[in-house]
Amino acid sequence: MYIYTNIIGVFVFDDRIDGELTLIDNLLFNNLEEYKKKDEFIAKIRAKHKNLAEPDEKILRKILSYYKNKSDFFKNFYARNLELTKSEIKESVNYDTLISQSINSIDELEKVINLLVKKLREWYELYNPEFSRSVKNHKDFVESILKSDKDELLKELKINSDDSVGADLNNEELEPIKKLSWEIYELYELRKNQLEYTSRLMDNLCSNTKALCGTLIGARLIAHAGSLKRLSKMPASTIQILGAETALFRHIKTGSKPPKHGIIINHPLIAQSNQKMSGKIARVLANKIAIAAKIDYFKGSSIGEKLLLSLETRFGIKFEVKC
Amino acid sequence: MYIYTNIIGVFVFDDRIDGELTLIDNLLFNNLEEYKKKDEFIAKIRAKHKNLAEPDEKILRKILSYYKNKSDFFKNFYARNLELTKSEIKESVNYDTLISQSINSIDELEKVINLLVKKLREWYELYNPEFSRSVKNHKDFVESILKSDKDELLKELKINSDDSVGADLNNEELEPIKKLSWEIYELYELRKNQLEYTSRLMDNLCSNTKALCGTLIGARLIAHAGSLKRLSKMPASTIQILGAETALFRHIKTGSKPPKHGIIINHPLIAQSNQKMSGKIARVLANKIAIAAKIDYFKGSSIGEKLLLSLETRFGIKFEVKC
Repeated sequence: MYIYTNIIGVFVFDDRIDGELTLIDNLLFNNLEEYKKKDEFIAKIRAKHKNLAEPDEKILRKILSYYKNKSDFFKNFYARNLELTKSEIKESVNYDTLISQSINSIDELEKVINLLVKKLREWYELYNPEFSRSVKNHKDFVESILKSDKDELLKELKINSDDSVGADLNNEELEPIKKLSWEIYELYELRKNQLEYTSRLMDNLCSNTKALCGTLIGARLIAHAGSLKRLSKMPASTIQILGAETALFRHIKTGSKPPKHGIIINHPLIAQSNQKMSGKIARVLANKIAIAAKIDYFKGSSIGEKLLLSLETRFGIKFEVKC
Repeated sequence: MYIYTNIIGVFVFDDRIDGELTLIDNLLFNNLEEYKKKDEFIAKIRAKHKNLAEPDEKILRKILSYYKNKSDFFKNFYARNLELTKSEIKESVNYDTLISQSINSIDELEKVINLLVKKLREWYELYNPEFSRSVKNHKDFVESILKSDKDELLKELKINSDDSVGADLNNEELEPIKKLSWEIYELYELRKNQLEYTSRLMDNLCSNTKALCGTLIGARLIAHAGSLKRLSKMPASTIQILGAETALFRHIKTGSKPPKHGIIINHPLIAQSNQKMSGKIARVLANKIAIAAKIDYFKGSSIGEKLLLSLETRFGIKFEVKC
């Protein structure tokens, strides 16, 4: 006698007569939840029938041909499998996915803001070129022109507004410029919001990686690896050049210099060091990130701060991981 | 005796003694406004002195050496010229410039919206993939997810919300998605505003071109040409392929097929025609645009509608120029 389990239920077949299979008992799963607890069902059946063997390949083929003419079986089988797939897709959304989505949206917002600010400056410079040229930082620029009018801005620069080479635009002509600035300002706010949200997600999923790299770099690493699980399985050398794939393959193909760092290049520890040291620091930093990711994945203790401190003392660089 | 005029004033030189130049009279401009009315000043001087000749090259050299040691002269000359340049830069901003800026901002907004909607859909599809896939139009998609919640949207598609493969996200996880949608919605609104503004500018500057091409294409033509003046000077064949420069130069260099249309390819007349006819229609349309631009530049009568009608009857295509 054989026991056979699939997504529909547990079945017992008897082959003692003519070597033909006869279904002598079964226990069907009413829904996916029961299927997930299938071990209990199997135990029940095994308690009822003695000497149940697992079918070998030959028997499995026989079982398949037993079901061949039972169209209901395949209909149920298909439906239940579809249900299972759906529920697995549904449950595949987790912190990793959300972090990937939100960090991608942050990077996209950054790109978009830069595109729009460039257009805004070009347009605004018809009106007040002196001020636009004096402020390098895009965000400061947008906030200033929303807060103050032309005269006030020029006064700050100690320029008489009659001396400005900017054109005199009337209110109707200024309005679209103002509206564009408002929109850009709100995109900055949105980016800030998304960053806070990503930061909260990372507190839940991978506080050690976050403490070590900050939200932006940590989230980019996870998004690039695909998930925290995959990041935690990566060797430090892979983490070190994650995001520098183009340079890596160019190195393999043409023998050009190998990349020293990928996504982690923006880490304050590397950004603050001199170029000669940056490769060495990147290697050590990637080592620590690999440790942090592993601990995060296996829900270990909180050691992010300790790892940070060991980096600080090793390289004698004081730094702060912001956002 | 010679008369010499520059940005500072009108000067009369006498060379009758030893062939040396002596300044015997002058009339200085107090400001740029007086310089712009210099003809009146010249007339005054000419009324006072008889037989004033324009200096030839030899005399001009002498005049220059006369001023050589007068440092005040050069200082004033420089200051006045700077003032003139500034005022000309200031006045160079006109409807053409504003149209170029606003149409560029519209095109940039379109690009930015598409980038963000792509990210939004990717993110939202974790939650409700069925709805996102069912709506092709980006704007409709954004407006719908702002207006209705998941259950309502799925009901419209006649899908039971339990059957959705989308994950169950809680409010905190949905919030950043909603915020991103709002921002995109506002970018759509901004684009609409900018389009209305551009449309008003074009009513003032080039109503015929606008009637013939619509705001978007008309403004792009002006922005690409640099100004209405330059557009009005272009032959129809140039207008026809304006914006298809890459294809044109590839044609010249490699002998590939020449482009049939540039910016005007989006004109409803061409978009609605079959491909075989599109080159012919583009040629005729460009002809009409060239006429319209010339009439607009020289502030002629309103013939945009008439030109449109002649196109309709010629090709037997009914069409409407929107926005």
